[in-house]
Amino acid sequence: MSPVFSVDDHRHMARALKLAERGLYTTDPNPRVGCVIVREGHAVGEGAHLRAGEPHAEIHALNAAGEKARGATAYVTLEPCSHYGRTGPCALALCEAGVARVVMAMVDPNPQVSGRGIRMLKEAGVEVAVGLLEADARALNPGFIARMRDGRPFVRLKMAMSLDGRTAMGSGESQWITGPEARTQVQRLRARSSAILSGVESLIMDDSRLTLRAEQLNLDNADEIVIRQPLRVILDSRLRLPLAAACLSEPGRTLVLTTEEHSAEKRRKLEAAGAEIQVMPSDAAGRVALRDVLAWLAKNEQVNELLVETGATLAGALLDAELVDELQLFVAPTLLGGEARPLFALPGLTRMADQRRLCVNDMRAVGRDWRIIATPLPTSASVDSKVP
Amino acid sequence: MSPVFSVDDHRHMARALKLAERGLYTTDPNPRVGCVIVREGHAVGEGAHLRAGEPHAEIHALNAAGEKARGATAYVTLEPCSHYGRTGPCALALCEAGVARVVMAMVDPNPQVSGRGIRMLKEAGVEVAVGLLEADARALNPGFIARMRDGRPFVRLKMAMSLDGRTAMGSGESQWITGPEARTQVQRLRARSSAILSGVESLIMDDSRLTLRAEQLNLDNADEIVIRQPLRVILDSRLRLPLAAACLSEPGRTLVLTTEEHSAEKRRKLEAAGAEIQVMPSDAAGRVALRDVLAWLAKNEQVNELLVETGATLAGALLDAELVDELQLFVAPTLLGGEARPLFALPGLTRMADQRRLCVNDMRAVGRDWRIIATPLPTSASVDSKVP
Repeated sequence: MSPVFSVDDHRHMARALKLAERGLYTTDPNPRVGCVIVREGHAVGEGAHLRAGEPHAEIHALNAAGEKARGATAYVTLEPCSHYGRTGPCALALCEAGVARVVMAMVDPNPQVSGRGIRMLKEAGVEVAVGLLEADARALNPGFIARMRDGRPFVRLKMAMSLDGRTAMGSGESQWITGPEARTQVQRLRARSSAILSGVESLIMDDSRLTLRAEQLNLDNADEIVIRQPLRVILDSRLRLPLAAACLSEPGRTLVLTTEEHSAEKRRKLEAAGAEIQVMPSDAAGRVALRDVLAWLAKNEQVNELLVETGATLAGALLDAELVDELQLFVAPTLLGGEARPLFALPGLTRMADQRRLCVNDMRAVGRDWRIIATPLPTSASVDSKVP
Repeated sequence: MSPVFSVDDHRHMARALKLAERGLYTTDPNPRVGCVIVREGHAVGEGAHLRAGEPHAEIHALNAAGEKARGATAYVTLEPCSHYGRTGPCALALCEAGVARVVMAMVDPNPQVSGRGIRMLKEAGVEVAVGLLEADARALNPGFIARMRDGRPFVRLKMAMSLDGRTAMGSGESQWITGPEARTQVQRLRARSSAILSGVESLIMDDSRLTLRAEQLNLDNADEIVIRQPLRVILDSRLRLPLAAACLSEPGRTLVLTTEEHSAEKRRKLEAAGAEIQVMPSDAAGRVALRDVLAWLAKNEQVNELLVETGATLAGALLDAELVDELQLFVAPTLLGGEARPLFALPGLTRMADQRRLCVNDMRAVGRDWRIIATPLPTSASVDSKVP
């Protein structure tokens, strides 16, 4: 039986979700969490988790509430933790503060610990209700949920294109397809991501820096945000990354994922130039195997949200392997014509029956450009494969 | 000095514009016109021009008003006519009915007669004011205005594409990219057009009927609308149109525009199959010259709005020649990949500096698809060429 929530419950949880958003660009690799403590209809304490290593949302809210937490209801966007880390578990802190009821939007997505915080609370006699505004809470932490539940990051593929679906001229010339407002949105996508993935071909072509730049974020706390530069991940099966690549001299780490077949010489030079090199399994075509990359990044680099900024080949390969969770297209009101570069290379797609359908979630103006957020739908093949 | 219009003036003219819309699908080749006659603040007569050969909007409104027209104000969306046709001029009818003031949204776009209706009214002592809601009035009759002013139709290019800018698979397979709601919108675009233009290559590939179908229009007066089938115009330099082409056995006329170089035999056969053949000047590449086609259609077929439904080559050629006034893109939430057919062939476009910029006027959901209405902006070359 699912619990019944009041209008006030909804209002307070909505506030907690709003608080959680404050950590959008800074909590990585932790989830974004908000908490509101309410007594006799009034919020007596609020908190948000802002940065890994700093207190959790519940602790901030309890500290603000003080004695008023006794007998109060705590609204928290994620199941309170049950583990002993730098400090004691948040679930225990809520019990000890005398909170009478805890309303949470969702349980912990980690199957290993999910439900433990709830049990800890219930065993202390605290009333627990779960599932209020759950979809909103999930939308706050798609990457953390994917990593905990599926052992891989949430993959967001960002592309800038003309209205006729072209990313660059045939020559590769591509600068400034979209305007400054779109570029600000891309900077914010980078800022919320644990890592940015690109193919070496794109880097050779565009020499992108793949960094956060405070002046382009257009946010009050931009200077705090850029302290953490997302990890740059470059797929480079044959170690072709130029030693002079701009990204190698930028703040933050550049991780080059490659296969076994390359010279130790080039490897040493790239490491000397600032790259970290990691050998990954290769696929049938001798390229770095994409599924392994995702699993590795989740496990070894705690990558929650992975932003992919790359060209048609890698974008097509990710789409083809059904590894894209979200597509963000920035569409410039311009036409580049049939000789220009395509959005996706999908060489296997030759029949209408094989088209890749999308669910468009959002379409809006961003400056003079348009932003489309879409979810690739499962192919019939992948749906079939679920039939036992 | 431009006249000052009251709030009531705006309200009555807005009503006249609304009435004019009733003729959207039926007045061709005449303009859509609405008229409201107002006395002491109340509408005493309303009218719209509904079909060529039937009375003009002013006559309907005067008939409805009867004696109440004396001393009244007439709001009309287009300058009343001054010519003697089947009936006398509308300007004279307004004078004779004793109308005291005529407010019009715009003057007649035909430079040969523009201002004559106004003069006729003024000479009879009627007060005249011009320019109220003029932009809205112009938007009602883009084709009539283009034909009268520039001697060519308003060219509206409609295309259906995937989100990655593809119109069909590489093989040509293309059926049902967009859904039924988008197809209804396309039917309405056909219904408001004097003619539909296509290239023979598209017809060979898709064998489109290019007709109005009452059941797909989804309009109350669909049966009346389909009485007039838009003229089908096929560019076919080498007379390759198959004798069994579906469009040849549909209601309405099919006009094949060709160059001199073809056999009299094929010509006779096509004529026997139902086509009308017209020889046009050819361009340097031996194809039917596009500018001549437009001028010819305006002059000989009274084409106001020309709907282009064709493939990448002709679409690209029209865009390249800056002959597209409006682009309507129906975008399906799907991806067809880099091997699929492009939206526009623009072989001359190789540098970003030559990209064809657009002004996006409207973007909205149409069923599960999206419709984008855009205006191609003049190229720098064409802007430069205007400098003396």
